[in-house]
This record gives sequence, C-alpha cells and structure tokens, in this order.
Amino acid sequence: MKLVVFGGGSSYTPELVDGLIRCYEELPVDELCLTDTNATRLEVLAGLTRRMLAKAGLPVRVTMTADRRRALEGADFVHSLIRVGGMDARINDERIPLKYGIVGQETTGPGGMMKALRTIPAMLALAGDMREVCPEAWLINYTNPSGIIAEALGRYGGIRFIGLCSGPKGWIERILQLLGADPARANVDWIGLNHLGFATRVYVDGQDRTAEAVEAAAKEWNIDPDWMRILGAIPSTYLANYYHRGLVVEKSREPGFRTRGEQVKEIEAELLRQYADPELVQKPELLRRRGGGGYAEVAVAAMLAIRHNKGERQIVQALNGGAVDGLPEDASVEISCVVDRTGAHPIRYGPLPLAIRGLIQAVKAYESLTVQAAVEGSRRLAMQALMAHPLIPSWEVAKPLLEELLAANRHWIPWAS
Amino acid sequence: MKLVVFGGGSSYTPELVDGLIRCYEELPVDELCLTDTNATRLEVLAGLTRRMLAKAGLPVRVTMTADRRRALEGADFVHSLIRVGGMDARINDERIPLKYGIVGQETTGPGGMMKALRTIPAMLALAGDMREVCPEAWLINYTNPSGIIAEALGRYGGIRFIGLCSGPKGWIERILQLLGADPARANVDWIGLNHLGFATRVYVDGQDRTAEAVEAAAKEWNIDPDWMRILGAIPSTYLANYYHRGLVVEKSREPGFRTRGEQVKEIEAELLRQYADPELVQKPELLRRRGGGGYAEVAVAAMLAIRHNKGERQIVQALNGGAVDGLPEDASVEISCVVDRTGAHPIRYGPLPLAIRGLIQAVKAYESLTVQAAVEGSRRLAMQALMAHPLIPSWEVAKPLLEELLAANRHWIPWAS
Amino acid sequence: MKLVVFGGGSSYTPELVDGLIRCYEELPVDELCLTDTNATRLEVLAGLTRRMLAKAGLPVRVTMTADRRRALEGADFVHSLIRVGGMDARINDERIPLKYGIVGQETTGPGGMMKALRTIPAMLALAGDMREVCPEAWLINYTNPSGIIAEALGRYGGIRFIGLCSGPKGWIERILQLLGADPARANVDWIGLNHLGFATRVYVDGQDRTAEAVEAAAKEWNIDPDWMRILGAIPSTYLANYYHRGLVVEKSREPGFRTRGEQVKEIEAELLRQYADPELVQKPELLRRRGGGGYAEVAVAAMLAIRHNKGERQIVQALNGGAVDGLPEDASVEISCVVDRTGAHPIRYGPLPLAIRGLIQAVKAYESLTVQAAVEGSRRLAMQALMAHPLIPSWEVAKPLLEELLAANRHWIPWAS
Amino acid sequence: MKLVVFGGGSSYTPELVDGLIRCYEELPVDELCLTDTNATRLEVLAGLTRRMLAKAGLPVRVTMTADRRRALEGADFVHSLIRVGGMDARINDERIPLKYGIVGQETTGPGGMMKALRTIPAMLALAGDMREVCPEAWLINYTNPSGIIAEALGRYGGIRFIGLCSGPKGWIERILQLLGADPARANVDWIGLNHLGFATRVYVDGQDRTAEAVEAAAKEWNIDPDWMRILGAIPSTYLANYYHRGLVVEKSREPGFRTRGEQVKEIEAELLRQYADPELVQKPELLRRRGGGGYAEVAVAAMLAIRHNKGERQIVQALNGGAVDGLPEDASVEISCVVDRTGAHPIRYGPLPLAIRGLIQAVKAYESLTVQAAVEGSRRLAMQALMAHPLIPSWEVAKPLLEELLAANRHWIPWAS
Repeated sequence: MKLVVFGGGSSYTPELVDGLIRCYEELPVDELCLTDTNATRLEVLAGLTRRMLAKAGLPVRVTMTADRRRALEGADFVHSLIRVGGMDARINDERIPLKYGIVGQETTGPGGMMKALRTIPAMLALAGDMREVCPEAWLINYTNPSGIIAEALGRYGGIRFIGLCSGPKGWIERILQLLGADPARANVDWIGLNHLGFATRVYVDGQDRTAEAVEAAAKEWNIDPDWMRILGAIPSTYLANYYHRGLVVEKSREPGFRTRGEQVKEIEAELLRQYADPELVQKPELLRRRGGGGYAEVAVAAMLAIRHNKGERQIVQALNGGAVDGLPEDASVEISCVVDRTGAHPIRYGPLPLAIRGLIQAVKAYESLTVQAAVEGSRRLAMQALMAHPLIPSWEVAKPLLEELLAANRHWIPWAS
Repeated sequence: MKLVVFGGGSSYTPELVDGLIRCYEELPVDELCLTDTNATRLEVLAGLTRRMLAKAGLPVRVTMTADRRRALEGADFVHSLIRVGGMDARINDERIPLKYGIVGQETTGPGGMMKALRTIPAMLALAGDMREVCPEAWLINYTNPSGIIAEALGRYGGIRFIGLCSGPKGWIERILQLLGADPARANVDWIGLNHLGFATRVYVDGQDRTAEAVEAAAKEWNIDPDWMRILGAIPSTYLANYYHRGLVVEKSREPGFRTRGEQVKEIEAELLRQYADPELVQKPELLRRRGGGGYAEVAVAAMLAIRHNKGERQIVQALNGGAVDGLPEDASVEISCVVDRTGAHPIRYGPLPLAIRGLIQAVKAYESLTVQAAVEGSRRLAMQALMAHPLIPSWEVAKPLLEELLAANRHWIPWAS
Repeated sequence: MKLVVFGGGSSYTPELVDGLIRCYEELPVDELCLTDTNATRLEVLAGLTRRMLAKAGLPVRVTMTADRRRALEGADFVHSLIRVGGMDARINDERIPLKYGIVGQETTGPGGMMKALRTIPAMLALAGDMREVCPEAWLINYTNPSGIIAEALGRYGGIRFIGLCSGPKGWIERILQLLGADPARANVDWIGLNHLGFATRVYVDGQDRTAEAVEAAAKEWNIDPDWMRILGAIPSTYLANYYHRGLVVEKSREPGFRTRGEQVKEIEAELLRQYADPELVQKPELLRRRGGGGYAEVAVAAMLAIRHNKGERQIVQALNGGAVDGLPEDASVEISCVVDRTGAHPIRYGPLPLAIRGLIQAVKAYESLTVQAAVEGSRRLAMQALMAHPLIPSWEVAKPLLEELLAANRHWIPWAS
Repeated sequence: MKLVVFGGGSSYTPELVDGLIRCYEELPVDELCLTDTNATRLEVLAGLTRRMLAKAGLPVRVTMTADRRRALEGADFVHSLIRVGGMDARINDERIPLKYGIVGQETTGPGGMMKALRTIPAMLALAGDMREVCPEAWLINYTNPSGIIAEALGRYGGIRFIGLCSGPKGWIERILQLLGADPARANVDWIGLNHLGFATRVYVDGQDRTAEAVEAAAKEWNIDPDWMRILGAIPSTYLANYYHRGLVVEKSREPGFRTRGEQVKEIEAELLRQYADPELVQKPELLRRRGGGGYAEVAVAAMLAIRHNKGERQIVQALNGGAVDGLPEDASVEISCVVDRTGAHPIRYGPLPLAIRGLIQAVKAYESLTVQAAVEGSRRLAMQALMAHPLIPSWEVAKPLLEELLAANRHWIPWAS
C-alpha cells in the first residue's frame, strides 16, 4: 500500500505520521511518499518522518520527490495538505477584510474565497494527474476550504475522493462529553456546509436530548447563550463569524491583536526548527498549538473505512446528490455518509430546519459561484460570489474589497492582475 | 356581481374606483361594498365613490358597513386594502431599524416583518369569514407585505385568492420602453419574491436582448451601474435595500430626512380633506403622490382573467408548488402564472440563476419563519425570523432591535407585550 | 415568411394547405416549400397546392425540391409530415404484433416502437440540417409517434420545436360538447403522454363537473362504461389498447378484418389519383376518411402562437422539465403549455393522479428506452424497451416478436439486420 | 427486555426462538410473550418454546396470552408473524387468479393484493394498541406483503417499525458465493420494492463485477438466461412472475400441480403435530421445508442494530422519503438503510436504472392504491389497484376476477361482501 502526501512539507505531516503509526496494524502502509514544491521543508519533514517510523519499528519505506506525477505512480491513497501561498497569503486573507469591517478568516468570508480561488486550480491539476497516473487511487483531502474544494473535485475532478474536516467529530464528542453521554449510545444529526454545520438533533439511548445539548453547548461558547437557545440547534463554532460578527470584528481591533496566520507563522518557524533536529523522533509538544488536533484520526478513519469496506458512518464533505432538499445535486454538503470501498454515500437527510436553511443556502450559492469563478478564471463571477456572501453588506464595500484582495493575490491567481 | 373592499376607507379606494369605471364594460360590478373599522374614513370614501360612479353614469350600487361578515354576503370578489396600525405603525417600521443602522422600510427588513406580524392575523380572520360566508369568492389581495401574506393565505387561509403587486408589471414596462420595445413582442422572465424579484432574461421578437436591457435599467437606477452589469439581471428597485444598503441608510441620516410614512401621513390627511369635498367627483391629482400607480390596473386585470377565464399570463404572488427549484412547495414566490377561472397556475420556472439564488432563498426562509411566528404568536420564531434576515448583521443587534420593535407594536400584536 | 413541409408529398398536405388558406390573414406565408424523397408524389402535391392557393387568390409562392438543405434555407417554420417506410411499414407494425396476441397499432405497442426506431434517425438528421441551415427556424412536428419524437428532439435535436397531436384538443371539445359547455368557459386538466393522455378534471364556470364529464365520455366510448366511472378520469381513446386490450385483439381476429394501414393504403391510392386531377382545386371529400381531421388547425395555432407571441395555452408534446412529479426532467409529456415567441413553457402540474400514475410511468420508461435504442442503434436497448412495455406479457413472447419486427424493418433500420 | 410475538402460534415461531437462542448474549431477552387468536396453536408453540429455551439453559420467561393489549405492556420489541385467514385464504389467493390465466401467488399479483387487504387493518389495529400501550417499542414486521404493510404502517401507523424480508440478503449471499466473493469485501447495490428488488451493481474489492454476477445469477435461474443478460441487473426470483409469467402460469396447469399454500398446509399440520410432542426440544428438520430460512437471522440483526445503535447497513422496507427519484416520499421501497437506535435511515439512491424503472413505478402505484383501498375500505380503489397491476391484462379480466376474489374473502374483509 502506497500513501502519497501532497504538500508533504506541511507542518501537519508529523500529526499524520503519528496517526499512521497508531493504526499501522489496520492500515499497513508500505510506502509513504512525500511530495512538495518546497525542497527544504520536504527534506526536513521526510527526515522526521523516517525517524518517527524507525522509532516505532515499522517497515514503512519513506520516499520523497518534487515530481508529483512520479509520486503518484502506484498510489493507493493521496493525502493533500497543500497551502497555496503559504502563511503570507493566509495573513492577507485575514487582514484585508478587517479593513472593511468584515470578518477576516482563513476559510470563512472573503478570506476563504481567496483561499479557494488560489487552491482550486492546484487541486484540479492534482486530480488531472491522478486520472492519468493512478485512476483507482483515493484522494483524502484535508486542504481548506474543504467543502468548496470538495465541490470543485466532485464536479470537475473525475477522481475518487473523500473531503474531510475534523471539526464536526470533535465538536460532537465535546457536546456528548458535556452531556455525560457515551458516543456509542448517542445519535447526532449533523447537517450543513463545511465550517457551517449544525447539530440539529441529539439522541442518547434513543431519547431526544437536544434541548440539554443546546444548553450545554451554549454555555461552552463563551458568548451570550440566548441565541443558541432560541436557535434550538448547535452550530459549528465557525458560526460565531455569522451570528456574532460584530464581536469578532471588534476583537480584531483590540490593541495587540494578531491574526491566526500571524501566530501560526511564528509557531511554524519554531516547529520547523524542531523538526530539523536529528534527535527528534516524535511529534513535538508545540504541534498542539498549531491546531488541527484530531485531524489524523479523521483521515485515517476514512482510509480504513475505504480499505476495509466498513460501511461506517462518517461526516464528510460530499456532493449532495439529492440527500438534502433545497440544495442542488452537485453542491457539496457536510453530511453523514456511509463510507465503504466504493466511497462516501450520503444518508438521505431531507429538508433543512427552517431556522438554519436560509443561511446554508446563501453560503452555498456563494461557494458554488466561487467554484465557477476559479474554474473559469472569471473576475465577474468572483464579484458575484463575493456579493452573494452573507457577510458582505453591499456593493459599495465589495467593490474596493475585491480589488484589494485580488491585487494581494496576483502572484497566485493568474487572472487576478 | 358584488365586489367588497376590505379596508374601503383607504386613500387608495378612489384609484380602484377609477379602474372599475374604466373597465366597467368587461367587469360590470352590480354592488360595490366598502367595509372598514374606521367609520369616518368609510363615510368619506363611500361618498366620493358614489359621486365618481354617478358622474360616470354607471348603475353600481355603493354600500358600506362596519360589519365584515355582512359585507361578505354574496361577494364574488373581495379586495383587501387594510393597513393594520395605520401610518403610525408604518413610521415605527421605518424609524426604529434606522437607529440600529438597518434599512427602515415598510415591506423590507425588520419593518416589513413587523407589518407582516400585525397583518397576518387580520388576513387569516378575513379568510375565516370568507370560508363561511362566501366560500366561492376570490380574495384579490393588495395588502403588504403581499408575498408573505400570500404564503400565510396559501398555507392557512383555505380560500381562493390572488396575491398582487403592481411593481413587476410597471418595472418591466419601463425596461421595455427604455429598449424601445413593444410589450406585445417582448418576453421577460421574472422570478423571485415580492419586492425581491428579478428580470432574468429579456427577449424582443424572440431575440435575447438581456444585456441591453440590463444596461438600460442600470443607468435608470441612479446608483453605480456596475453592479447590475456584473449581476446580469435586473432587480426590482427594492433590491437597492440589499445591494446598496449602506447608501440607503446614509441617506436617512441626511438632515431633514423624513420617512415615506411620514410623508404619506401628511399627504393622506390632505387627500382625505379633498375626498370629503362634495364637489369632488374624480380622483384628485394629489393621489399620484400617494404612490401605488398602476395598482388598479393590476387588480382589475386579475379579476378579469378570473371572471372571463382568460388564461392570461400575469406575475402574481403564488405558492411555489414545485415551479421553482430550491424553494419549498408551500413557499410563496413572485412568478408568472396563467390566471383563469380556477385561479393562478405557476408556469414551471426551474432552478434560480446562481447569482440571485442565495439571496432569494435566504429571504424566503425569513419570510416563512415570519409566517410561522405570526400564526403561532411566537416571540422565539420571530427572533429566528429576524436573525434569518440578510439585513440583520448579528445577534447583538437583533436582540435589542426586536425588543424595541415588539414594544412599539404591542397595541397591534397581542403577544408582543 | 417561409414554411417548409418535410414530407410534402404526404396525402395530408392539402389539409395543411387548406388550414393555411383559412388563416392567411394572421399567418401570411410568402413561400411554401415542399420537399420529399418521393418525386412523383412531390410533383402531384405541389400541383394541387398551387391550384388551391391560386383558387384562394393568395400570393403564396409554392416551391419544391428533393434537396432538403436547400429547402431549409431561409425557413421560418418547418413542418414534418414524413412517414419512414410508408404504409407498408405501417402494415407490418399493425400485423406482426397481432400474431403474438398483442395490439397492433401505428403508435402504441410494438408497432409504435418500430415506427419510432425508423423515424428518430430521420428526424435527428433533419434537426442536424436545421441547426446548420436555419438555426432560428421552428420545427412544428406532426410525425408520429409524436411524443417519442419530441423526446428525441428535445434531448438530441438542438433546435426549436413544438411537438403536436390533434387528439387532446378534439377529444376535449367533444367532451365539452357532450356537457353542453362552452369551451371558453371551461377548464380541463389534461396530462399524460402522447396517445396516453387523460382529462383528469373538468370545470365549467369554475364548477367541478368531472363526474358528469366522465359519465358522458364513458357512454361515448362504446365499451363497458364501468371502468371509466371507476377510474374517474377520461382517457384518450388510445387507452382502449391498454384497458381493453383483449377486445382490441379479438376484433382483429374477426373475419374480413383489415388493419388501418391496409385501409389507408387503399384510400391514399385513390386520393393521389384525385390529387393529380388538374381540375381539383380544393381538398377532396375523401380526405376526411384518411383521418387527421383538426390537424391543420392545431399546427396553425402553434405557428400563430409563436409568430404573434400569444402566450396561449396549448396541449403539446414537451420535455417535462420538472412540471410533472415522478417523471424525469428530460422525458417528454403531453401537457398544457404556454406557447409564445420563445416556445412552449409547461405549466406546473405536480403529482400524477395515483390511478393513472403507474401506467404513465411504465410507458414513459418504454419510450425513453426506445429513444436510447434508436440513438445508439442498440438491439439490446430495443429489447429492454419492448420488455418495459406494459402490453408485452413476457420474455417468451418478446424474444421472437422483436426478431420478427426487426427482420421486417431491415430496409429502414440499418442495425436491424 | 421484553419481546412480544404477535401471531406467536405461527409455525415459524421455533425458527425465531432458535435465532434468539443463538444471539442470546447480544440480545438477552428477559420475557418472550406469545400472543395469538388461535388458543390451541398458542398453547403448542408456547410449550415448544419453553422446552427449547430450557434446553438451551437460558433464563427467558415465556408467557402467553390471547389479550394483545396485555401482551404489549412493557414491550421493547414486537414481532409480527400473523397470517389473516390462514392457509385457506392463501390457497384462494393462489388458486383464483390462475382461473383467469394470471399468476397466483401469496404476495405478488391479485393474490398479494387480497393478502394486503386482509392484513393491513389488523396491522394498523396492532399499531393503534402499540401507540397507547408501548409507544416506545419497535415493531419488527415480517408479515407479508411486507412492503405494502410497511407503507401502511409508515403512513398510518404512528409507531416505530422496521419492515423486513429475508430475500435480498439471501439472494445477495448466493450471488457472491457464485462469484467466489467474500461478502465483507463486496458491495451490492440493491433497489426496488419488496419481492420486486434488483441487484443493480456488484462490486468486489471495489471492482465492478456486475456482468459476471449477472451471468452467474442468470444460469442459477433455470430459465432462458438471455433476458437477464440483456437486462444487465439481477432481479429477485419473484420477478419470474413478471418476466416469465407465461411459464409460471403454464406450470400451474400441469397435472398434479399443487399451490404452495396447499403444500404448506400439509407441512404445517405435520409440523404442529411434531411441535406438540413433549419430547421435542429443538426446531424439527421438517421446518426447513416450510421455507423462510434466514428469517430469524434478519429479524435478530434488525433488533441488534437498534438495541446496540450499530449504524449497520441493512436492506429493509422503508418509506422512500426522497431516497429514490421518481417515487413519492411516502411510498415504501426495499432499500439499503443505516439502522440504529433511532430507526432505519435510507441511504440516498438517486434515479432508478431505466430498464427497471417503469415496472417498479407501476407496481408501486398498485401498492399505494391497495393501501388506500384497505384504509378506506373501498371497492372502487381496490379495482383501481387491480387495474394498475402490471399482471392484469384488461378490464374484461379484472372485473370478474375482483368479484370472485372479494367473494372468497368476505369472512376477512368486511366491505368485501
């Protein structure tokens, strides 16, 4: 079994390697191939990976190459961790919208749109190579914005893939913990889009305990809990960017505020220094502060479900395909699927609860326009997408904002200049 | 043939009477019955109505009564012009949101929501009386917010009705005029919700002239025309409240700004003085400044299409019933229908254009929540509705805003206090 | 205005010419161009056409050519009357199924399937020429099986077209006549497939008179009226082939039975002799016995609705496009449409009545398989189509039947041999 | 845990008891309560059940009562094995249609319709009692026609239930065995209605091996394999009643033919004699010849999936709920569901393959009409149902057939006489 890590020079790679080590028995990788455009990082990460596997005493061959097509030869799974534009682009995504009084975030709002516009062409190019070199391989995507990437891959990729996000699993586990409930005895209905998902119903031992779960989650949120009580559903934490956008923007105006990208850039520099240490044979403590905890678990679970034909329920980013009413068949959604050897099969959901329906539909329209803008390289569609975004108040704001965002991205988006 | 005017003391009544006079041959009303809760206005309007009909030499019997059920006896058509709370409530609708930096408007945004919450119970009470007293009569509704009222009537009314708005017809005629096109040779695709409609395609002699039409409409709009060019569709003018909300709010902060309700209140006072003049035998010139031009034409056209089984295409507020994808069957939409003796039958539209889809779906969710809030008398649903509205930025704004709006409406909404 | 008649040597042509003469004021044809592969018939029909128009004193130029592409140059409307295989193929269609105890009919059952397999390639070839030579022209199709042809054109034709059948209009008029009702005051819901349509509801002056209408139609049918009473809807007369198939087959076993094709072949021979008479200047009395009465009226009505942008309701063969639940978007249905300068727009119908739903869906599946079989030239799909047909009892019957049908059609269906 | 067996006097009961014994560890039943209207059989079966459990050394309390409501008190699971009218009614179902040249079968065709009409009222009465006495209990239904019963329960039952049939699992296992494939490594797409299901796609280790599977199944079928090859899908064996109906009817005309009901009646008499033997402590060998093998396994699997919240994929009879296109939301289908503590959740399937779509839709319409006929007690709807059935050739056959069927069922169907 060969696993290729696209963007293998990522600071997340040791997290994945750690996960592979823990699941080796069920998922015995023969070759782990790292590929990246950054030769230095690739070298560092390949070294640490080798040391980690050696320490674990596992017979995994670690290879590395800058040649993506060669990397893909014979691949069974391809795992994407790429970040087009790196932390600098992310900092733009987070800083520029704030100037206009709009949430600056890596995956949500105008920042997420820019990340999508930079990333979709790279992911479709990868898919193109996979179609030719390893058409039966599975792409296990973790690159953000994961939902939008999933829609692009689903409509234009022509490959087998699973779009992931560790968020829903982690948040659901936390909710159940707050309820004192055993996950094996609980059933949580989850629906929405990536970073726009909702736990709409929580059952424990077949009893509806949604109200209690909402109360517990509301208190956990550190914001006025009344809204969640009224909503009657538990949003992903990213929803604070919508429901409490004023607070989020205010916070960024506090003195000393640094964006997440700015913080991570610093952490990553230190991480890479540590990774390069030939004595290091495990993921360092500092990696926790990088975020993305639980990520390897979700990625490995998907690969296991495919490889062992488990038919296991997992919340993934999949094309709707008629599972949710009021959204097109070819729109991606974040939804419970049965994952097996033939992929992720959405469980029929039905109509969205009315209180969250409009927001999900509005953001979906923005996402689909963004995919179209990226695929066609169209500034016009990009503007339609931005104007369709619920966080954008008006044309008067959107017009200069898009100008500035595209200008800042001209190195990574050819049609932006 | 008996036509009942519910809210017959409205300042619009002479507009309707004028329309009836012009179409008398096709629509020979035997009895025109005015009913209103305001006895003084009822008296004044009945007097003017009689004089206008007398001058026209038409044998129409004009009756009036405060007893609605008696008014409905033997009715063929019931026409609603009621305004619950009158101009004072409207001024609240327009003034209060502005304090929070939000568009204040009679039918759009938080103001429209309040109008709906005040009006839906009155319309459903009327429907209840009609079911019992004149179950075969048609309600021709002009009371705003017309789309939300249509949804409430369609889901809970149990009567025959047509929901009207003169906006689309007037705006389409203006667009065609700008193109120099004969309406009889043009085809315009119109879709959306009430006061949230769009001309998505314009054909003249079978040729697609949408781009030209967009250009002409954009210039007519008196706002930066670039957005409409990019959008590629012609929004109803009410859409300025969404796409250019900042400008709209700014304008209201100019010194000397008066809301439309404040202006109309003054005009209405003068109108009523003129109406009371026993010499007046036609609608006065001042009525034009009251607005609603073209209203009688649309109302009469609907009655004619029904009475003469015309099978004529008209843009009305109807339950979707599967005509538009991505919206529920029981949601009201503003759509081309074939209107005949058995009612308004939507012409299948299909999927909404992506650039306008999200906004329409988001506003629809708000509207449906508003209907539910009104029917159940639920403050919780009212808050869900307000938070679902695309013009509301956050919970932190919505919470005090709803408090203030409900407090101001406690005379008209029993559960508001 | 130029009108091309594809299959202009048809014995129906004088019917069309007669219709054109009657509507000349509204539809002033400049050139009427007849094209046909049969030079003799073309000559005869062109002659009669010229004499009829001359007698009417109308300045219509009558042209004829065997070169279809040349005929199409400058065309506004193209009218198809072709019959691939002529009466001999029809007689096969009617005779062969009877040997297997199955209804033999020109458009229904295995016969109709053969007619579709012969005709679809010819119609798609015509469409191909139209796309290149006269892409803005409208094809007004009357060639049977009209519904299946409409589906093939709608999915693969890439041209503007209206699929017609005079049946529903004629049958509805007859039903209303039986009720003593004025068509202008009646509303009849009609739905189904071509030659498989149903009047599901009959209103007169807004009152539901379906039960009376069913009773009247049942008596008219000359078969045990109980079934129609129980069904509660009025089927097209072709439905006798399904509901009373045994009687239909029995009748064909009576001594002296001749199929309709055999009768028509004889009538046509005589018709052509009469047509050739240089004294003949109008359609002869005998043409009535040929059938297709009312056909010109329906064809002219469609052309008028397009040309004059009437927005008139007409029952035509159109792609479903979501108008009827339970059938695919790209399946053709026989449905009320609004016909204007931009084509036929289905009025949303909703779910099919349960009592007729299954039969319509089953026949639709057969029809769609037939289209696929014709387009792919696939014997396998043809067998799937035949087995999907509700009149086919089993594989043991279908297998030899298809063999024999294909053998008899090997001159007209290349892949049949 | 309390399990109630409704129809506990069934000859199948020992099969269920045997399954419970084998799964006792996972499904530790405390009380097994048998209820039946036939006191003698109840006594016999309770005795054998006690002896079987005693022999297995399991501490299960076996109770019995003719009072259904008492039986339901405290129930966790209710299992239905009832057969309204017993074997005599079944023999009628199988014999009468044959007189008219139509397949006589317990669940398919006119026989199945009669069984549904007899059984639905009894099942809805059971559901009514469950709603009151044990609203949280699950009905695990095995009573045929299982799909039609599921639709009746889903629309009118108001209880939690799972509709079962052991057919799909058994047939799929056989197909995989023929392929030499390990079920754990295979994925089989199954869709349709009860006794009208199809394996539409067979994957082994992620490779599409449908063609091979079709070939293997075709040979297994003992009928001309060509049809299945052409169809390209593997039908349930019950489909022989449709695709090869002539052969099935012929077979029944062979000398010495006995219907399955006639055979089973004899076997059951002998079985009951054996069951009464106080020495018998296990299910007798003869039970195999009774049929229904694998039944306990499927029933126990459903109970385990619910009790242990497994989220396991099982093929069950469930309301469609939008999982399959072209069928109503409230129609039952035989479909892969995820079964957990909150019930059976259909996995979205999408459109039916065209080659099988029409038949499934036609039979579904018949089934839904049958449910309506049973619920309303309507002879008219019963006739519409029969006429909608694809095995019924015409009104001329259906009319006397329904008369005779209803007459034969007048003891069990109140409105039949």
